[in-house]
Amino acid sequence: MTERIREFLRNRREDGPCLVVDLDVVRDNYLAFTKSLPDTRVFYAVKANPSPEVLSLLAGLGSCFDTASVAEIEMGLAAGATPDRISFGNTIKKERDIARAYGMGVRLYAVDCLAEVEKVARAAPGTKVFCRILCDGVGAEWPLSRKFGCAPEMAADVLEHAHRLGLEAYGVSFHVGSQQRNTGAWDQALASAAAIFRECAERGITLSMVNLGGGFPTKYLRDVPAVEAYGASIFQALRRHFGNALPETIIEPGRGMVGNAGIIEAEVVLVSRKSDAPDEVRWVYLDIGKFGGLAETMDEAIRYPIRTPRDGDILVPSVLAGPTCDSADVMYEKEPYLLPVSLEIGDKVLIEGTGAYTTTYSAVAFNGFPPLKAYHI
Amino acid sequence: MTERIREFLRNRREDGPCLVVDLDVVRDNYLAFTKSLPDTRVFYAVKANPSPEVLSLLAGLGSCFDTASVAEIEMGLAAGATPDRISFGNTIKKERDIARAYGMGVRLYAVDCLAEVEKVARAAPGTKVFCRILCDGVGAEWPLSRKFGCAPEMAADVLEHAHRLGLEAYGVSFHVGSQQRNTGAWDQALASAAAIFRECAERGITLSMVNLGGGFPTKYLRDVPAVEAYGASIFQALRRHFGNALPETIIEPGRGMVGNAGIIEAEVVLVSRKSDAPDEVRWVYLDIGKFGGLAETMDEAIRYPIRTPRDGDILVPSVLAGPTCDSADVMYEKEPYLLPVSLEIGDKVLIEGTGAYTTTYSAVAFNGFPPLKAYHI
Repeated sequence: MTERIREFLRNRREDGPCLVVDLDVVRDNYLAFTKSLPDTRVFYAVKANPSPEVLSLLAGLGSCFDTASVAEIEMGLAAGATPDRISFGNTIKKERDIARAYGMGVRLYAVDCLAEVEKVARAAPGTKVFCRILCDGVGAEWPLSRKFGCAPEMAADVLEHAHRLGLEAYGVSFHVGSQQRNTGAWDQALASAAAIFRECAERGITLSMVNLGGGFPTKYLRDVPAVEAYGASIFQALRRHFGNALPETIIEPGRGMVGNAGIIEAEVVLVSRKSDAPDEVRWVYLDIGKFGGLAETMDEAIRYPIRTPRDGDILVPSVLAGPTCDSADVMYEKEPYLLPVSLEIGDKVLIEGTGAYTTTYSAVAFNGFPPLKAYHI
Repeated sequence: MTERIREFLRNRREDGPCLVVDLDVVRDNYLAFTKSLPDTRVFYAVKANPSPEVLSLLAGLGSCFDTASVAEIEMGLAAGATPDRISFGNTIKKERDIARAYGMGVRLYAVDCLAEVEKVARAAPGTKVFCRILCDGVGAEWPLSRKFGCAPEMAADVLEHAHRLGLEAYGVSFHVGSQQRNTGAWDQALASAAAIFRECAERGITLSMVNLGGGFPTKYLRDVPAVEAYGASIFQALRRHFGNALPETIIEPGRGMVGNAGIIEAEVVLVSRKSDAPDEVRWVYLDIGKFGGLAETMDEAIRYPIRTPRDGDILVPSVLAGPTCDSADVMYEKEPYLLPVSLEIGDKVLIEGTGAYTTTYSAVAFNGFPPLKAYHI
């Protein structure tokens, strides 16, 4: 919570939950990344928070952008980034979207299989591609599935295919899992990347770049290592696996760039119990839930810190749920959340660390509730 | 798939996934409900599909509306329903939203605890309330959590509280779980409801109504019983527990009213394997996923039938995923989906039974992808 957000909320009059993002925090985060990884280019993951204010700020600071769709490329360009600062980082692209990106000047594409290489070769000839490899994601709080990337053993084939089709086989990417709390998590993936560099070199192809992905955490309930610790650990791992022939590197922070810059103000709509049994857990219903912006509470993966006007009172376990008529719209039930026993209907609560993956996740109109309002100050 | 939808899709030229709903099917479903449960009023669950075309059709046929928010009440009124045909069926309501509903003429409210009764008594004095009770949901494919309703033992206290505060203690509601395949699932809940009627009568309060909720299924991969079978089974259970003193009854179908009326046309964006291992499962990526409208694939709960232009070819297990850069955007992985081995990038697929809980669930702009387009014809 910053003084600027506090002041904004003090003067807010309208109804309904809202996100407030302090752009000064985003700026500080960007500078911490560039200081901690001085030889690494920052490609902000636009999907984390694509608000024009965030994108313009970062474009002005010199950030590049990792984009997932044509719309995100257009947002990056509108924010002032030149096309050479944009990566089309989604490994799942329609060929006509690749063509549109190419038409806008984008020259860097992610691939993870032969078929995607062929699409890029046809629709964006001569451009750079990097191959995403699978990574086990141990230590991540929002671990990645096997959705993106190929087995490391397949990467050289994918990159060689690109080379043969006239693309520039540019490098390797991986993602160690979102909200990665282990600063050493990059080591094993960098070992794989170095092996792919060697394998490609043996085939006469010189790779240039390692995309270190995202995974940099934001502080939720538990403390997380500082970005400096990630920078030091990654640099050591790069030296360990690449020796003096350090590759060009890029990172794609999203959550780590904007997560701690945002706070959602919500309201307690109902506090109740399901029966008079003494062990019956209390239910607390907010005016925001899984479909209103807090989708990352899915499987109770992300546990946001919640501040209430009753902090300091005795805490009791509470099931926390959203306002919709959907029974899946329950946020913390397997492990109920400790909230003040005195919490009352109408109390405003502050949900911290909500600057990333909230606004765009919210449903268009589920149950008639509008999407999350957001202010970037 | 109806001929009208087929014709519409044949003439469609634009890009991206879309839902097409055949209103004739919705009309048939409405008539089947009124025929199968002739003494029961239908309150369509607006949240299932709140499109103006669906609401106007149903309002014209005489349907009432179950609403979850002020916005849904406004939609029901705009579609031509009078306020006496609208129930504010969400048990989690802000007091100022109850006041707004009251101002619009709504006189029927759901409650499940003392605090909610007090809100209704203050903001909508003299109106009717029904108390929702918990129900175990056995047999449902999308079972409900304990989010809504109180233990049956508590209901008489809740209703008596309403009575004392000048409200009309009107009845009891429950929900047997969405996509309920067991036509007998209403029996146990109706036994509870009858017990609450008796308990209230002993306290001098005469209840009038049982809200039988929703739960009526739509056909996905497996066949489901016809609505006539539900009607017969419910009527028998009513006679069993209420004898000749049958209460007024209402139902709140949502999925059962619109689910089978809609089809989503989507496109195969990528087909790939993660490695050359012979047992490696194939991945099929569509241009729609969990955040683009197919949220009910969460935990692989709902398995939609999918038609492809290659049906008839050999089927192979495929992990089915959406187009976003979110690793959670995977629809069927624990139990891969059988799809033709010949399926190719660019193929159009038809996802059946998608008329309910798709459009409004879709994210506003996650990864820059627009919400699901919809046409009601």
